[in-house]
Amino acid sequence: MDLGTAIECVKAAFRAQAAGRTVMPAKITLDLGELGDWPHLGGSYNAMPAYVDMENLGTFAGVKWISGYEDNVRRGLPFLMSLIILNDPSTGFPLCIMDGTLITEYRTGAAAAIAAWELASKGLPRGLTASTADPSVPVSVPVKEQEGLNERECFAVTLIGAGAQGKSALRSMAALGILGDVSVVDIREDRARSLAEYVRNDLSCNATASGLDGVEAAVRRTDVIVTATTANEPLVHAEWTKPGSLVIALGSYLEVDERCVTESDAIVVDHEEQVTHRGTLVPYFKSGVLSRDRIRGEISRILAGETAGRRSPEERILAVLIGMAIEDIAVAGLVYHNALKLGVGTRYDLIS
Amino acid sequence: MDLGTAIECVKAAFRAQAAGRTVMPAKITLDLGELGDWPHLGGSYNAMPAYVDMENLGTFAGVKWISGYEDNVRRGLPFLMSLIILNDPSTGFPLCIMDGTLITEYRTGAAAAIAAWELASKGLPRGLTASTADPSVPVSVPVKEQEGLNERECFAVTLIGAGAQGKSALRSMAALGILGDVSVVDIREDRARSLAEYVRNDLSCNATASGLDGVEAAVRRTDVIVTATTANEPLVHAEWTKPGSLVIALGSYLEVDERCVTESDAIVVDHEEQVTHRGTLVPYFKSGVLSRDRIRGEISRILAGETAGRRSPEERILAVLIGMAIEDIAVAGLVYHNALKLGVGTRYDLIS
Repeated sequence: MDLGTAIECVKAAFRAQAAGRTVMPAKITLDLGELGDWPHLGGSYNAMPAYVDMENLGTFAGVKWISGYEDNVRRGLPFLMSLIILNDPSTGFPLCIMDGTLITEYRTGAAAAIAAWELASKGLPRGLTASTADPSVPVSVPVKEQEGLNERECFAVTLIGAGAQGKSALRSMAALGILGDVSVVDIREDRARSLAEYVRNDLSCNATASGLDGVEAAVRRTDVIVTATTANEPLVHAEWTKPGSLVIALGSYLEVDERCVTESDAIVVDHEEQVTHRGTLVPYFKSGVLSRDRIRGEISRILAGETAGRRSPEERILAVLIGMAIEDIAVAGLVYHNALKLGVGTRYDLIS
Repeated sequence: MDLGTAIECVKAAFRAQAAGRTVMPAKITLDLGELGDWPHLGGSYNAMPAYVDMENLGTFAGVKWISGYEDNVRRGLPFLMSLIILNDPSTGFPLCIMDGTLITEYRTGAAAAIAAWELASKGLPRGLTASTADPSVPVSVPVKEQEGLNERECFAVTLIGAGAQGKSALRSMAALGILGDVSVVDIREDRARSLAEYVRNDLSCNATASGLDGVEAAVRRTDVIVTATTANEPLVHAEWTKPGSLVIALGSYLEVDERCVTESDAIVVDHEEQVTHRGTLVPYFKSGVLSRDRIRGEISRILAGETAGRRSPEERILAVLIGMAIEDIAVAGLVYHNALKLGVGTRYDLIS
């Protein structure tokens, strides 16, 4: 499975979603002290079941079971660990069990890159600065182009959170040929530096690194801001963002300030129901400054052409992509099909 | 894992539940046409996550993923198939993946047997027939005793639904020494006959078999009625039940008539929240004839002595046990511990 295949697969899952060819109850959380009072284990799990009918690409059913433990990084374990079970949709028979950690990275990055492709500004009209929050910041129109992949322009990107999901977002944008200069920000500056080096060496883009103190400068100079953190506080402030900017929030908790929510020209989400339960919008739904009619639509409908995405070059857009089980099951399904074709994997008799 | 161990383990899970030492969000359903409109696959799945702290017996976290496809029996496949993932509660690290089908049978049977032990009538005062729905039916006081296991009396039992869950309920009651004469009823009389033969040969109890036309006669002569079906219609009618009878409904849909709900002296459940979403009580909550204040309590609190179970020998009690993830994870945890001790199972490196 390469990134390009994963991106096509997530697009197919989005198209299935837009066409109503998915079944996906809202994910449920087993909270072992991440937010709840007891037990004090500092972790939580999501059970994410889905059925997705991608026509030519296949029809899959299954569940992803994913844990997140904040202290794991300190312990030398991944923050997120997961397994995916795929079932035969006709009988329920368990077809395979696979690691879901890499699939989670692939699909999260793919969704972010698809959102950037669909929603990032293709360029502002020359001289437009009137609506810039800080007029002293020059409005840059991205013009850099990568050869070969497509004719899109590249976008200057700030990544906040130099973990596995953020890295995958950068790799996926590079695979789509839309990754321009990169600013990596992380609470641990060494992690930011390490990822910036990867971007320079492996993705052939300019990249700088900073700690959290560099967020403002990075956001002010970039077109696309991706947050992929376990933060539960505002990291992106609306006043720093440029006209035409796109903020993509991937985290499970609070990552953007209230003005990002109230003053964005559009809010795009991956799942209208789910974002009311999890992710950066939850506190704003709870406090009442945000209501569902403020949401422009789901990314799947924008991809399908049913909802307009960006309506003008200068719109500030907030995209909240919590991640959906249909993405996981779709990518896992393709991995399973490929494994069967290649004859890899191990067979077991699960029932006698 | 023998039945006795499974019963002790489910009891420990109930005690943990009563003590507030469990985390268990309500199970979620992926419906592939069992009730929903699309797709028409006639199946559904439940994702059932849980954390259970059983003190001496261990602390476990994980999820059960279980499918049910009604046509599977015709296909020669089990109706229910499932897998259980256990995680290290401290880090989320996946500890093992195991078949959940047998564990489901064990814990479902164990819960039914525990409910029978706690709630079945220990015998009516001699001559009590005044409140018998049909005075022509003699009120039998079960007196038969099995040697050795305990000093409880045995109960005459009707089992409706001769599948794996029902068989396990009978085996568990036999393990507790409370299984008396058995009437097995199934929509397919051959299945009923086959299970009745098993009861006679392996559980050393009298057993008769019938098709659905034998339900009324069976219910009229028995103390404990267990329903373990995929029916979605009333199988047990209150007017057939004796004073002092206990109806245990294990199915996921409708199995008892409205009068069983409105006229039972007590309704006992395994999970007060969950029974409003799934199982035989759902239609009665929806139609308004049942409200939550009618529920006497959860079986776990009765086991813990916090709520009175049966208050008189002649009460008619309805116990609705949909099945809880804590039971699955508790039993799976013990199986895992035993497998480690015995050195069985297969090891994999799930993350690199």
